[in-house]
Amino acid sequence: MNALDIISKTKKSVPLTDEEIRFLVNGFTSGDIPDYQMSAWLMAVCLNGLTESETASLTIAMRDSGDILDLGCIDRITVDKHSTGGVGDKITLISGAIVASCGVAVPKMSGRGLGHTGGTIDKLESIKGYRTNLSFTEFTDIVNQTGFSVISQTGTLCPADKKIYALRNASGTVDSIPLICASIMSKKLAVNADCLLLDVKCGSGAFMKTRRDAEKLASLMEKTAQSAGKKCRAVITDMDSPLGFCIGNSLEVKEAVELLQGKSKGRLYDISIQISADMLELAGIGNITECTELAEKAVSSGSALSVLKETIRLHGGDCSICDDTDKLPKAKYSHTIYAPRDVEILSVNAEKIGMASLLLGAGRITKDEPIDYTAGIVLDFSTGDKISMDAPLMTLYSNCVSDFSETALLAYNAINFKTLTGNVLT
Amino acid sequence: MNALDIISKTKKSVPLTDEEIRFLVNGFTSGDIPDYQMSAWLMAVCLNGLTESETASLTIAMRDSGDILDLGCIDRITVDKHSTGGVGDKITLISGAIVASCGVAVPKMSGRGLGHTGGTIDKLESIKGYRTNLSFTEFTDIVNQTGFSVISQTGTLCPADKKIYALRNASGTVDSIPLICASIMSKKLAVNADCLLLDVKCGSGAFMKTRRDAEKLASLMEKTAQSAGKKCRAVITDMDSPLGFCIGNSLEVKEAVELLQGKSKGRLYDISIQISADMLELAGIGNITECTELAEKAVSSGSALSVLKETIRLHGGDCSICDDTDKLPKAKYSHTIYAPRDVEILSVNAEKIGMASLLLGAGRITKDEPIDYTAGIVLDFSTGDKISMDAPLMTLYSNCVSDFSETALLAYNAINFKTLTGNVLT
Repeated sequence: MNALDIISKTKKSVPLTDEEIRFLVNGFTSGDIPDYQMSAWLMAVCLNGLTESETASLTIAMRDSGDILDLGCIDRITVDKHSTGGVGDKITLISGAIVASCGVAVPKMSGRGLGHTGGTIDKLESIKGYRTNLSFTEFTDIVNQTGFSVISQTGTLCPADKKIYALRNASGTVDSIPLICASIMSKKLAVNADCLLLDVKCGSGAFMKTRRDAEKLASLMEKTAQSAGKKCRAVITDMDSPLGFCIGNSLEVKEAVELLQGKSKGRLYDISIQISADMLELAGIGNITECTELAEKAVSSGSALSVLKETIRLHGGDCSICDDTDKLPKAKYSHTIYAPRDVEILSVNAEKIGMASLLLGAGRITKDEPIDYTAGIVLDFSTGDKISMDAPLMTLYSNCVSDFSETALLAYNAINFKTLTGNVLT
Repeated sequence: MNALDIISKTKKSVPLTDEEIRFLVNGFTSGDIPDYQMSAWLMAVCLNGLTESETASLTIAMRDSGDILDLGCIDRITVDKHSTGGVGDKITLISGAIVASCGVAVPKMSGRGLGHTGGTIDKLESIKGYRTNLSFTEFTDIVNQTGFSVISQTGTLCPADKKIYALRNASGTVDSIPLICASIMSKKLAVNADCLLLDVKCGSGAFMKTRRDAEKLASLMEKTAQSAGKKCRAVITDMDSPLGFCIGNSLEVKEAVELLQGKSKGRLYDISIQISADMLELAGIGNITECTELAEKAVSSGSALSVLKETIRLHGGDCSICDDTDKLPKAKYSHTIYAPRDVEILSVNAEKIGMASLLLGAGRITKDEPIDYTAGIVLDFSTGDKISMDAPLMTLYSNCVSDFSETALLAYNAINFKTLTGNVLT
């Protein structure tokens, strides 16, 4: 068995055996297979694809490259959740707290934001004192106390994925559904919760731009989970426009807390309840109607907020923000954009608004860049709203950018609206 | 301009500009673009192809990575020849001498054999004393004296090709018609003869296995030459069975010399005359009928042999081999295979017989391996011949292999024959 034969097979669309894929993953991870061979193979995968069975083999070989967690010390049924990434996606904070307050444990390892998309770890680190790099024992202890904990992925999980992802990023081979599936699923299978809810984002602000690609990825991830004997469901949710009104780390924590305080309904609330209900149903708590009711009650009763507050406290974070969101760190500079005339909002391009937020300091272009936790954008409208001339459209926040001319234009251009006749709103 | 954008374009089959291709070739040659990016791009080219215009840009950028020869010091019109490689292909030795003896200069840089295919430099180095690494001045001096010289390619020509070829070889990206075209043509354009005859081999012993691929490569090379303003013709010749009776370096020199001594006709003679005539016509010596007659006369008169002899002498080689081929080095061990029954030879698989010859020591699997100049195979038949039981089929020669059990089986299996009824030849 050698790497050149394996590359040649994938180049000719001849399916690889499980042993060949394992040889490739282990060889590359150990450094025996050089990066120029691996990147050639990755490009062949991008262009020729992999079969479902090859994708499952790749995922499992990547999972096996590092530790597989034993969550047996957690006394409840465990459910993990993954979002493929979007703009303004703070659902993990909300649904994690809801599901935990309904008696199901949510032990979650999350990532940081990259490009125009955010990451849960960044959002949590915007809370003063919140520690994301806990030991495994600290992590499971918190889960056993509150039912919910979010930490950053430990270095011992899926080293193959880390190395392959870095190479994909540097060799133009990110864009491949089987490779995306293997990257996500290897980590999720290594975390090894009892069941897994996958939230596949679809639209301009997501990696999957079309419904067809999102469905392909969702189906492939479900089949891969099945091959590994894992209970799993994938749902597809819209990411054409950003989720909720806030984009940016501390701004999104604020929005999540306020939702759990019962202060806001709307699209973010609906999707959060739907995801929570799916997680609860998957964990065997009841049928979807029962689980939806449980989730709604967890918000209205304040029990989900209590879980979030206690979780933040156990992580060393300032949990008083759950009573008073004004205690979250705030940006030094802000800039409000007003409607230039009477308009109706037709849509907001999530990718463009995400890029504007990134440029304000809320995101990073390359891994491990520092970010500005206070930076971001708060929208003053929902799609379909009519806004009078000179009423505020959105406010931009930043600690590092004081001249908003460039970012304001970018954010403004993300909005697609139509002008209403005669400045009269009907 | 950056490598990732360029990779992404080729991945999506978006044609690159001349500037982008130049950026890639120069960046990789200088080391600014890492090999893992280049190999990903090369794989994208293997699978998505390049346009004719991209292929021309790539070829010219590779040519421009090193010296371009100025053959102005050669006082006759110059014609270069390239064969895409085969088994038993000693045509350069024969046609070079023929063409030179007809008044056209053949300044030729050649390569070494790799895998089952041979290389002219190895064949010439099997002649005692023959120096292949002459200076440019020594090279053109010999061409001015005899009209013919073959040296190995100098290190200052096409460094981009050397680096790209090594990476292709190590990353499973050899098999691509545009990349093969660019590799061949960049070197030929750097040698910069007035005109160029390309002999595209087609069949089991060639890199192009099918007529369709050979035609594609031939046409692409002609168009690339045209883009670079070079007079060029590509012919396609059969390489399903080996060329001539001898495979292996000193054995092939013997066969070439004997052909120029007027001792043998047949397929090798016909193709050698055809290639020589094409070269002469390309150089403007006459029409194809006239050039064919000139080529035949060059053999029958002995003038081509004289050119070869003098060329060998000027290269420091033992030119007495042109009078007595027994003076060529001989193998210590030999083994003759006899017909197991009365048979008719249907075909010989050139690739398999080439591999048997390689295992006897005549070839190399990886670049720069030493080889056994005396090793090889001499066939005792042509396709279509009928051979009586116990008559010799072929003889294997080697200095390094004394146990022929494995190679004899391999060589025997390369022959496809049918058994004739009742041991009676009709």
